[in-house]
Amino acid sequence: MTSPRPSVLRVDRRRALLVELINIPSVSHHEHHLANWTEAQLRQSPHGEVLRAGDEVVFRFPALAGKSKIIFCGHLDTVPANDNQTARVEGDRVYGLGATDLKAGLAVFLDLIETLDPATLHVDPVFVFYTCEEVAYQESGLLVVERELPEVLQNTRFAICVEPTDNAVELGCLGNLHAEVTVRGKAAHSARPWFGENAIHAAAPLIERIAAVPERSVDYGEQLRYREVISATTITAGDARNVIPDTLRMNVNFRFAPDRSREDAVTVVRELVGDAGTIEVTDLSPAGRVASENPFCRVLVAGADGAVRAKQAWTDVGRFSEWAIDAVSCGPGIPAQAHQQEEYATIGAMTRSAAIFERFLQEAREVS
Amino acid sequence: MTSPRPSVLRVDRRRALLVELINIPSVSHHEHHLANWTEAQLRQSPHGEVLRAGDEVVFRFPALAGKSKIIFCGHLDTVPANDNQTARVEGDRVYGLGATDLKAGLAVFLDLIETLDPATLHVDPVFVFYTCEEVAYQESGLLVVERELPEVLQNTRFAICVEPTDNAVELGCLGNLHAEVTVRGKAAHSARPWFGENAIHAAAPLIERIAAVPERSVDYGEQLRYREVISATTITAGDARNVIPDTLRMNVNFRFAPDRSREDAVTVVRELVGDAGTIEVTDLSPAGRVASENPFCRVLVAGADGAVRAKQAWTDVGRFSEWAIDAVSCGPGIPAQAHQQEEYATIGAMTRSAAIFERFLQEAREVS
Repeated sequence: MTSPRPSVLRVDRRRALLVELINIPSVSHHEHHLANWTEAQLRQSPHGEVLRAGDEVVFRFPALAGKSKIIFCGHLDTVPANDNQTARVEGDRVYGLGATDLKAGLAVFLDLIETLDPATLHVDPVFVFYTCEEVAYQESGLLVVERELPEVLQNTRFAICVEPTDNAVELGCLGNLHAEVTVRGKAAHSARPWFGENAIHAAAPLIERIAAVPERSVDYGEQLRYREVISATTITAGDARNVIPDTLRMNVNFRFAPDRSREDAVTVVRELVGDAGTIEVTDLSPAGRVASENPFCRVLVAGADGAVRAKQAWTDVGRFSEWAIDAVSCGPGIPAQAHQQEEYATIGAMTRSAAIFERFLQEAREVS
Repeated sequence: MTSPRPSVLRVDRRRALLVELINIPSVSHHEHHLANWTEAQLRQSPHGEVLRAGDEVVFRFPALAGKSKIIFCGHLDTVPANDNQTARVEGDRVYGLGATDLKAGLAVFLDLIETLDPATLHVDPVFVFYTCEEVAYQESGLLVVERELPEVLQNTRFAICVEPTDNAVELGCLGNLHAEVTVRGKAAHSARPWFGENAIHAAAPLIERIAAVPERSVDYGEQLRYREVISATTITAGDARNVIPDTLRMNVNFRFAPDRSREDAVTVVRELVGDAGTIEVTDLSPAGRVASENPFCRVLVAGADGAVRAKQAWTDVGRFSEWAIDAVSCGPGIPAQAHQQEEYATIGAMTRSAAIFERFLQEAREVS
């Protein structure tokens, strides 16, 4: 299926690609140079075509149009730098900002595109390189793709997000709701608190209620368990230490299981807060449906030797679910390394990732 | 007792003094110009002498040394400006930063000094103009006086702080303790809170305990009631909304009654917090003892037509108590006007204040 480039050279190629990818800074909202570089790489393919909308870059093989469409997607952006902008190779490891989340996955994609022969494929792989995954739900470059290049998403049968999963197939994802809860009181001098109403004191029973919400586990078969959790993650009240505070603000974060809709999640938080405060939902990312029954998912899982896990966090799998597209996460990065200053990826995991995707593309067939 | 300046001229004089006092900015730590101006005013007295240490200014009559010493004190500083730095006279009112807290009192003092004839007095009034009352306990200019001019405080029989009391005599004062309470947890991704320990959730029972502390009333006779109260006044935790917060910080403010020592107040807070967090006491101002039995206090109260009140806040009366000096607050400012942008004092209250102090000085006699 692939061109006859020796595998040892491909290992070197992926490492070189990853080093280049790391060395082109691409913090969220600043992906322009990396998008240009990626486009230039992709335009060297003799078989493919490149679409671009803003800094969203799409690669596909026109000859495969009409076959079952499989999206391979990875984000170009990284979290902010932390004195780790320059790639460093040490043995099997490549260190640097975004190495594991998820430029190692992008390197696997680029190498795959260079070596794929579309004449051997029975599905239509479409590669999407997008911006602003590390920021708010509504800022994602996938929304630009949806708006500017709608045909890219249409009739997609399956999508693979190359998020760091250590090459396991992670199914579904938790939904993610952030709500700013405001508890109101009335200011007064702290020597005469009876003239006011202390917003911190007023919030205590609400915090107790949030802390007391039991974890809810939702199982899909024997291998997949999603743990639904709610937490107060930030709190602030009081400008002056001798004044009874009249306002308390608290971020409540609800990570909800795939069996809940976004509306349902909002209802849970509203009922929990009750009349203790007002609520502004500041982020609401849908849970991702569990695609274990999707035939392409079965092929991918088989190729990954059955390594499946529930995704105990949010990923763009949830966004694809909103578009009624089954999706999973599967990539060479190491989950625990994501967003760490000493973030790294391994050459070995990239080799394995390439093998999983190649096997998937060899074995995936039209299914009705 | 006073020089025969007609009372109508003295009203004009006090108003003019107050306007000048307001128009010389003297926000805490920036009292230098006002101290110089005050010293220049005082040096015009033919009978008195002026002492100075830094920007602390003291006036006394050498001829009265050895009689019962009465300290009249007022702070030179104001809270920060809020677009109200310039004096404005409207009928009976003088508006401007510090008008009520407490430059109206300083104007009464300066006019009194200009008109007092020490040959008619049986006590030794000593006037102390000091810096940095509006900031932390340890920053007060009274500590400079204690250190640099210790003889000023020695053998004092009674002290009057010209704080805004609407010319009532306010006895005692609440003590004031601020403690920063730190509750520790352990950080984790908010989708996997079981790997961490939420400092906000952990703090909720402590906040509930603080909110549930009943107010304790302490009565001195039938007229004086001190209400002891404790409040959380500021709270902060969490840098990122998707991270379980590992640290919560909360300011706890304990306003304690005159029957408690500072050590006792610290013990109350320590026992309340228990092992829920660590405590750093950041301010600890002693309560002021209730001087109702002091013979000079009785004279002052009689001259104020019996208007006495408990001081439900902290004042330097607490500091004088630490020095074993009985003190009260009594001044022409309006308590509710203190620290307001549209702060004002009235000419009428200044006239009454001058009359109270003159009557006090006429009637005060050596007591053993």
